[in-house]
Amino acid sequence: MEGGAGRGLECQKTMGGKGSNGNGSDKEIPSCCLKARASAPEHEAKCHSTVVSGWFSESQSCSGKYRQQVYFNNPMWPGEAHSLKVEQILYREKSEYQEVLVFESPAYGKVLVLDGIVQLTEKDECAYQEMITHLPLCSIPCPRNVLVVGGGDGGVLREVSRHSSVEHIDICEIDKMVIDVSKKFFPELAVGFEDPRVHLHVGDAVEFLRHAPEGKYDAIIVDSSDPVGPAQELVEKPFFETIAKALRPGGVLCNMAESMWLHTHLIQDMISICRETFRGSVHYAWASVPTYPSGVIGFLICSTEGPPVDFVSPINPIEKVEGALEHKRELRFYNSELHSAAFALPSFLKREVRELHGTPSSTPKIYVS
Amino acid sequence: MEGGAGRGLECQKTMGGKGSNGNGSDKEIPSCCLKARASAPEHEAKCHSTVVSGWFSESQSCSGKYRQQVYFNNPMWPGEAHSLKVEQILYREKSEYQEVLVFESPAYGKVLVLDGIVQLTEKDECAYQEMITHLPLCSIPCPRNVLVVGGGDGGVLREVSRHSSVEHIDICEIDKMVIDVSKKFFPELAVGFEDPRVHLHVGDAVEFLRHAPEGKYDAIIVDSSDPVGPAQELVEKPFFETIAKALRPGGVLCNMAESMWLHTHLIQDMISICRETFRGSVHYAWASVPTYPSGVIGFLICSTEGPPVDFVSPINPIEKVEGALEHKRELRFYNSELHSAAFALPSFLKREVRELHGTPSSTPKIYVS
Repeated sequence: MEGGAGRGLECQKTMGGKGSNGNGSDKEIPSCCLKARASAPEHEAKCHSTVVSGWFSESQSCSGKYRQQVYFNNPMWPGEAHSLKVEQILYREKSEYQEVLVFESPAYGKVLVLDGIVQLTEKDECAYQEMITHLPLCSIPCPRNVLVVGGGDGGVLREVSRHSSVEHIDICEIDKMVIDVSKKFFPELAVGFEDPRVHLHVGDAVEFLRHAPEGKYDAIIVDSSDPVGPAQELVEKPFFETIAKALRPGGVLCNMAESMWLHTHLIQDMISICRETFRGSVHYAWASVPTYPSGVIGFLICSTEGPPVDFVSPINPIEKVEGALEHKRELRFYNSELHSAAFALPSFLKREVRELHGTPSSTPKIYVS
Repeated sequence: MEGGAGRGLECQKTMGGKGSNGNGSDKEIPSCCLKARASAPEHEAKCHSTVVSGWFSESQSCSGKYRQQVYFNNPMWPGEAHSLKVEQILYREKSEYQEVLVFESPAYGKVLVLDGIVQLTEKDECAYQEMITHLPLCSIPCPRNVLVVGGGDGGVLREVSRHSSVEHIDICEIDKMVIDVSKKFFPELAVGFEDPRVHLHVGDAVEFLRHAPEGKYDAIIVDSSDPVGPAQELVEKPFFETIAKALRPGGVLCNMAESMWLHTHLIQDMISICRETFRGSVHYAWASVPTYPSGVIGFLICSTEGPPVDFVSPINPIEKVEGALEHKRELRFYNSELHSAAFALPSFLKREVRELHGTPSSTPKIYVS
């Protein structure tokens, strides 16, 4: 947004104060990117006894006559919040890394929350998991070796395993509690771990990648939480460099890349870094995910120098991968039309993110049926 | 969503109780489409004195030490809500038809709310207004006569006036207060009324269309509120029939058509009715609008029998309309790539809405640059 109605609405590049990233690092974080008191009690909490760390806990109403509505308040970014009604809290523990919460909601099914931020819901996880997986895997012919960074819920594994060409899937997730909780409460996602091609590594992805053989992977998918807290390192240059090294020539990375409505400065930073690191192509794509901030999530999708990759027109369309549409369960969101459409960007984004100004090297034809 | 994780999450077709549409009609409304107590006090209101009709009014915190955060709670649909922090309430009156509220929010700028439902915010109105206007107007060569139904804020008029071929714009808005409020608080939208081609009719659109000359319009844009309350008639067959009659052969309708994540049954009903009424083509498209329920809004776009209209590939691309990109203000969201991309639909939607199963008659090429 610029000028006029958009005055002052763009992402503030001035720092609104220091945010601790919970990681010992004191890197300044723009105020629009602070998790808005995700795990700290709100001021209102001092007023209303039902508010605990940003969410309403179950209780009877004052009069005792009405059963109080119980909401989980997802404190997305300063100035807004998305609330989901809570039917039942199923799990709440602190792991070594973060607070893990699972509850049942009537509108979106079971919900996984890490450090106060919604990670996935049963109703709309299909959009995120399918897009972050098939955008890269359908853009290269015959993917064989795949690495998933994060993704402890197993949803990305479920999607990778649709690809019959894949021989080996490494996953490196830092928090074992996320895996255990998913196996208990989200069997439709954790089913991904059952594939015999999957090799689980519980640990730090930065460390894991440092020891990965050069050029090992055809595709790497970074399914991390927001780049505040334990995932901070995952949007910095050294990490992208180790990724590029672990990819074969013409190998591809797909990385969760925030909201085009809220975080153009983060998107710009990530694209800048990736343009320096990946000498093939670098694109931005997006999808609709209702329970993520502003209802969208972006993907940064890059290839290393080597055989050119045309991300916009999938060379390995999912509709032609044997058995892919129904493997484990039906494909719910992704299809080849949506793949291509995901690269069509709003004018304000192209204007605000200077790296998206120009046109990419190819203007491929895509088909909408 | 069907089966598995989606169990019980799809739109309930069983009625959850009778909803009055405030219109004298007692047509049953699916429970998922009831405005969730938009203008009725919530049970919680009985507990917290700061909650009035679903929104928090400004006050000091109990301790007097902290200034309380003030949020507008947009009660979207049962089980979820989107809240915007309120900086200042600028206007609040009851018109003959609805409650009109304007407030300033730090995250999305000024917000217009009708009967408790967010209609537009300064930050994201560009997506809705530009898409609902240019999807139809860029799909036909040289639009001359355009009718806007609703749209009292003026945003659609601002967009229509980008088209230099347009000679006459009728607008029929039932609630004069919406127009007055927009002129006072939303000058970037109300600027649309200043175009000399605009002819304002304050009144009932059903009545207006009944007296419209047959075949008068090249395009009709229905920018109404949700089909509950005063806008109920605007999704029923007789209304679509009067629209089809008022369009020239090969003329086009674009109608706001709810969220693909929440209202597949409404979408299905609207498409069924339009397939019977419009003998040209009928398509569904969508766009990202963060402050609408589930972060998306859909558009039903139809043409009457006559010269065939290829909605997916704009024949009248906005980039080639003289002066269109900067008329009044720059185009912020819409471009020809997004136009084509808007017709790419998630697999679950094609599966759930039987009318979207098949492929349309053409599979045109579109380009993403």
